[in-house]
Amino acid sequence: MSRLKKMFNHLSSYGQQETGINRIAYSKEEQDALAYLIAIAEENGFLTRKDAVGNLIITRLGTDPSLAVIATGSHIDSVYEAGKYDGLVGVISGLEIFLRLNDKQIKTKRSLELIVFACEESARFGVATIGSKVMTGHFKPNILKLKDKDGVTLKDALIQWGYEPEKLNSAVRKKNEVDYFIELHTEQGPVLERENKEIGLVTGIAAPTRFQVCLKGEASHSGATPMSYRKDALVGASEIILELEKLAYQEVKYKTVATCGVLEIKSGAMNVVPGEVIFQIDIRSINYPSKKRVVDQFTSLVNHVSTKRHLQAEIKLLSDEKPVLLDKPLIKKLEKICLKHKVEFTHLPSGAGHDAMNMSRICKTGMLFIPSKEGISHNPKEYTSFEAIERGVSLLEEIICDLAK
Amino acid sequence: MSRLKKMFNHLSSYGQQETGINRIAYSKEEQDALAYLIAIAEENGFLTRKDAVGNLIITRLGTDPSLAVIATGSHIDSVYEAGKYDGLVGVISGLEIFLRLNDKQIKTKRSLELIVFACEESARFGVATIGSKVMTGHFKPNILKLKDKDGVTLKDALIQWGYEPEKLNSAVRKKNEVDYFIELHTEQGPVLERENKEIGLVTGIAAPTRFQVCLKGEASHSGATPMSYRKDALVGASEIILELEKLAYQEVKYKTVATCGVLEIKSGAMNVVPGEVIFQIDIRSINYPSKKRVVDQFTSLVNHVSTKRHLQAEIKLLSDEKPVLLDKPLIKKLEKICLKHKVEFTHLPSGAGHDAMNMSRICKTGMLFIPSKEGISHNPKEYTSFEAIERGVSLLEEIICDLAK
Repeated sequence: MSRLKKMFNHLSSYGQQETGINRIAYSKEEQDALAYLIAIAEENGFLTRKDAVGNLIITRLGTDPSLAVIATGSHIDSVYEAGKYDGLVGVISGLEIFLRLNDKQIKTKRSLELIVFACEESARFGVATIGSKVMTGHFKPNILKLKDKDGVTLKDALIQWGYEPEKLNSAVRKKNEVDYFIELHTEQGPVLERENKEIGLVTGIAAPTRFQVCLKGEASHSGATPMSYRKDALVGASEIILELEKLAYQEVKYKTVATCGVLEIKSGAMNVVPGEVIFQIDIRSINYPSKKRVVDQFTSLVNHVSTKRHLQAEIKLLSDEKPVLLDKPLIKKLEKICLKHKVEFTHLPSGAGHDAMNMSRICKTGMLFIPSKEGISHNPKEYTSFEAIERGVSLLEEIICDLAK
Repeated sequence: MSRLKKMFNHLSSYGQQETGINRIAYSKEEQDALAYLIAIAEENGFLTRKDAVGNLIITRLGTDPSLAVIATGSHIDSVYEAGKYDGLVGVISGLEIFLRLNDKQIKTKRSLELIVFACEESARFGVATIGSKVMTGHFKPNILKLKDKDGVTLKDALIQWGYEPEKLNSAVRKKNEVDYFIELHTEQGPVLERENKEIGLVTGIAAPTRFQVCLKGEASHSGATPMSYRKDALVGASEIILELEKLAYQEVKYKTVATCGVLEIKSGAMNVVPGEVIFQIDIRSINYPSKKRVVDQFTSLVNHVSTKRHLQAEIKLLSDEKPVLLDKPLIKKLEKICLKHKVEFTHLPSGAGHDAMNMSRICKTGMLFIPSKEGISHNPKEYTSFEAIERGVSLLEEIICDLAK
């Protein structure tokens, strides 16, 4: 078994249960897994430190440590009942590359960093990429008051493991500390597999605009209320959901997507015309004007349908983040490496959020995707072949050495 | 205060709580209310008996008790958090009529019956009109195994109050025992109020055809799955719900209605394209061919949408009852009485089920509706004016005397 595979299998065993992996942010399982990484790093002569929010930074010193570093990294925390690959691929790849450079006795000019970000998943505190938000100074002090489902605050969780919630600002990196950050990650979508590509060069990260819509009509007896007297909130919601799909299809060349993933009929019953429906909408694109067109038309759509159907609509904006475009010259460099090695690649946006999104605030940033079987993620069925991971590692090694030399 | 209002207010006080009326079938509250009715009946010289399932039958003897009786009645059990009028109106009206005939010292040839049906509401055991099902022989022996939410069976409930679950057949009425059954009830819908009518002559009772549909697509990341790669079960369900509305509108002249009142996204989340949706459909009409057209087209619709959207569909038929048409000559008689008294009336189907539906198996049956404010029912806000109730009582008295003379 290759070293890469051995390390991967060991790391993924933390939190492994019958129903999937549970290596929740700041859990014992996750902290034990960090200790394993630190042990390997220290054995092999790399520096390690943890910051105030629990990000682990493993450094392979360059010949000129005064220069801005070249960083890679990802996360090892998981959602509940997770698969093996999400996050781990990027962490193990970084470590493997450092070890390969040791094997080859290659010295880079710039120091290299492997960053293992804390709390990338929103599973525990409802907010994603907390570690990279803090590292890039993109957080509010009340972040410490976030609570998990047992009422434990982020502050409590940090204190439990000896991190320093009162010194979060000490974790913020300066803009000139990091030259490049490149994250290798599984696609978590079906595009590479369907299009038979080995590598995805990520053009941007499509942070969502999210709405909660409450439609109020009139609950009435399903038998006793003629069609023309109804104010059916669910039929209204159905019309909106179906039309929203059309709006997204109109923007398909910008890869804009729109989804209703949550819908609830209030006091729904077989013999009651739905009087109130609440649903949530998630609209994403890396093309801001395209996303804005869908968002604007969506708002008009809700108003149009609710007026026509005599419903009352309340639209609540839950979040509205701007998409992040990744570094174009870096994408060009990655293209060249792919072409050189005859790797089949395509460009694609990342619909999911990643720590790279935050890192792009402080340095030139890139992301590489490798295929996810059937696009499945956040699920024990998540799968990416080691062949695909090895391919990602080789590309990442080449670009890191190129940038750091 | 009129006797009618006094009796109505007293009867409706059983089970009255702050949040509404809870006079559940076979509860102490309901049985106490029955005792109140029996006391009035016995004081005034009417016969009373309870059958094996707990139906109360109050008889005002005619001059020829060998003739088939003229019956009226309704129920006094309620849903949880109910209003005052559902069922009670028909019961108190019958009693008031009997008392008025006493006042006027009128003797009818045929005996009159007021039937207070047991367990009309499905709230406790999930099955409606149990008392009239038993009375008309339309039940299976396993009805006794029905359980309420605390695990109490119908059999246990009957034994608790001294009824005789082992002798259910003794409660079945013979076809020649009852000549007519006429039920006065609130509309529980908006038609009379909207059309400014005082009385509804019910043409038939529209028992529902019900389906549960499970649509399976593929749960995937809402950001990482391009529109064209999605198998979104919710968009499929939305399309079906919207088209079903059109199918019902095509049959609007038959007053056919179709409703989706229950819909659930399995493991729904903001950032997940819905992989599985379960929803329930209720289609009603008193016109059987019209209902059948909607039902048949609905099945085709589900298949069409699921094929087009690469979803798997499972359609489960939950119930499929035939609509009941009420006695036409009786409706004609009622029309004449309305015209004579210049009462504004209309014909309408009953979308909700009633004991009259079962009684139509054993005798000529009719129903009169009086308006429900804003069509609200099964809710503490349920309201019908005493003026409207008095009008119903007068009509019911006249038709009963006419049929019984």
